[in-house]
Amino acid sequence: MALLLACFAGASVAQSAKSRQAAGDDFMYQYSIIDALMAGVFDGDLTIGQLKKKGDFGVGTFNRVDGELLIDKGRVYKVAWDGSVREASDSDSTSAAFVKFFKADTVIHLNGPGLTYEKVQEQIRHLLNPNGIYALRISATFPTMTTRAEKPAVKPYTSLPDHLKHNQVVFELKNTKGVCAGFLLPPYLARTNVPGFHLHYLADDRKSGGHIFSFTADSLTIEVDMAKGFTIENNTNAEFGKVNLQPDRGAELKKIE
Amino acid sequence: MALLLACFAGASVAQSAKSRQAAGDDFMYQYSIIDALMAGVFDGDLTIGQLKKKGDFGVGTFNRVDGELLIDKGRVYKVAWDGSVREASDSDSTSAAFVKFFKADTVIHLNGPGLTYEKVQEQIRHLLNPNGIYALRISATFPTMTTRAEKPAVKPYTSLPDHLKHNQVVFELKNTKGVCAGFLLPPYLARTNVPGFHLHYLADDRKSGGHIFSFTADSLTIEVDMAKGFTIENNTNAEFGKVNLQPDRGAELKKIE
Repeated sequence: MALLLACFAGASVAQSAKSRQAAGDDFMYQYSIIDALMAGVFDGDLTIGQLKKKGDFGVGTFNRVDGELLIDKGRVYKVAWDGSVREASDSDSTSAAFVKFFKADTVIHLNGPGLTYEKVQEQIRHLLNPNGIYALRISATFPTMTTRAEKPAVKPYTSLPDHLKHNQVVFELKNTKGVCAGFLLPPYLARTNVPGFHLHYLADDRKSGGHIFSFTADSLTIEVDMAKGFTIENNTNAEFGKVNLQPDRGAELKKIE
Repeated sequence: MALLLACFAGASVAQSAKSRQAAGDDFMYQYSIIDALMAGVFDGDLTIGQLKKKGDFGVGTFNRVDGELLIDKGRVYKVAWDGSVREASDSDSTSAAFVKFFKADTVIHLNGPGLTYEKVQEQIRHLLNPNGIYALRISATFPTMTTRAEKPAVKPYTSLPDHLKHNQVVFELKNTKGVCAGFLLPPYLARTNVPGFHLHYLADDRKSGGHIFSFTADSLTIEVDMAKGFTIENNTNAEFGKVNLQPDRGAELKKIE
């Protein structure tokens, strides 16, 4: 396995400093928290138009968990349960989204053959700091790529694991070229977000995508953008104030990731 | 026990909306995370001058955990291990601080007699939403008030619980009039901050204060400021990248609060 690491600005991978962005731009932003989504808070009040002002890159879902959301280069895409991809309207709303203004401060090239998602995760973890907050943009041709999207929920909503049990559709993509967008987050962001890797996929031809379960690749370009911090905006939907956020849903979350 | 609740703007306690502040001002801000402080990251790079730009109210500590920090009305105070209080210099630095621009959206009056900190917590919890993020400013005369401050650490640093075991000084104040400043935070902010109540005390005569363990009071005025969200800025000190933030330190934290 060959690894080529290009690290801008001569800083170490884990501590590369950035002064090129306004302070607020180098923070990750999220609307709502993962535990509220897990508990069934499937509607939010943030529009896609508003979300775009918080970041030009990231992942999330839509109201009613109607598909998987991916933002790349300022464009917001919806991967629907039937596998189709369309650009989201600014008037759509999200119940949970995690975004950042993306500007790579590190680029990692990984060469296989036969790299799996697990092996790629292992390599990235080896290079980055376990306590850092990272946005990751991975470009490659994938011999195999397994993703999911889900059918929208109807009220009364159940929990996310219960909803996925009956409404998740899995896509087995072959020889697909595209971009994985998402985050590698530290353990202290459990409950608010997904600790570890959380990536969504979008094919370059905009014909497939979804929440990534696994992939294989022979050669990948991994752009890394370390965040200085993290902003959580609470979901203002009344349901957010009603759900029980006391239990630790970490084990449940791992099962559906 | 008599309770008078003054709720501005006619909204419910849990959902009072605010449009009077710039968006960023209505978010809580914190430098570093509680689990890093617990793990012994006792130095940070944020000056008190910089901290004041993030909020005019809140709690925290100083580098080397040299005393308890309290901010009220834009002034930053240090309660030292010898019980003395002085205004902190803008050039001092903090390893962990939690602040907000404070503007009450709800005022609660509680009348005793014989209210304890536990009873006050119970009453406040009954009125506010368990999933909300609240800054609290409590004014009263306290027949008894038990607080602590700690001696500064010397390198090599231990964990915070170990440091407090040998360096915590407890103050048993009597008939003291002053202000409790701090936060009531939801369970999903465990690991990053202190879930539940976290208040520091400052006497009106600026002659005593500290991290609050318990108090009694017959009559209290509780100003409540609900935050729309939460910003975490990671500590840039190299030690932050080296400590193990994987373990859940919630049980340890409860013991020292």
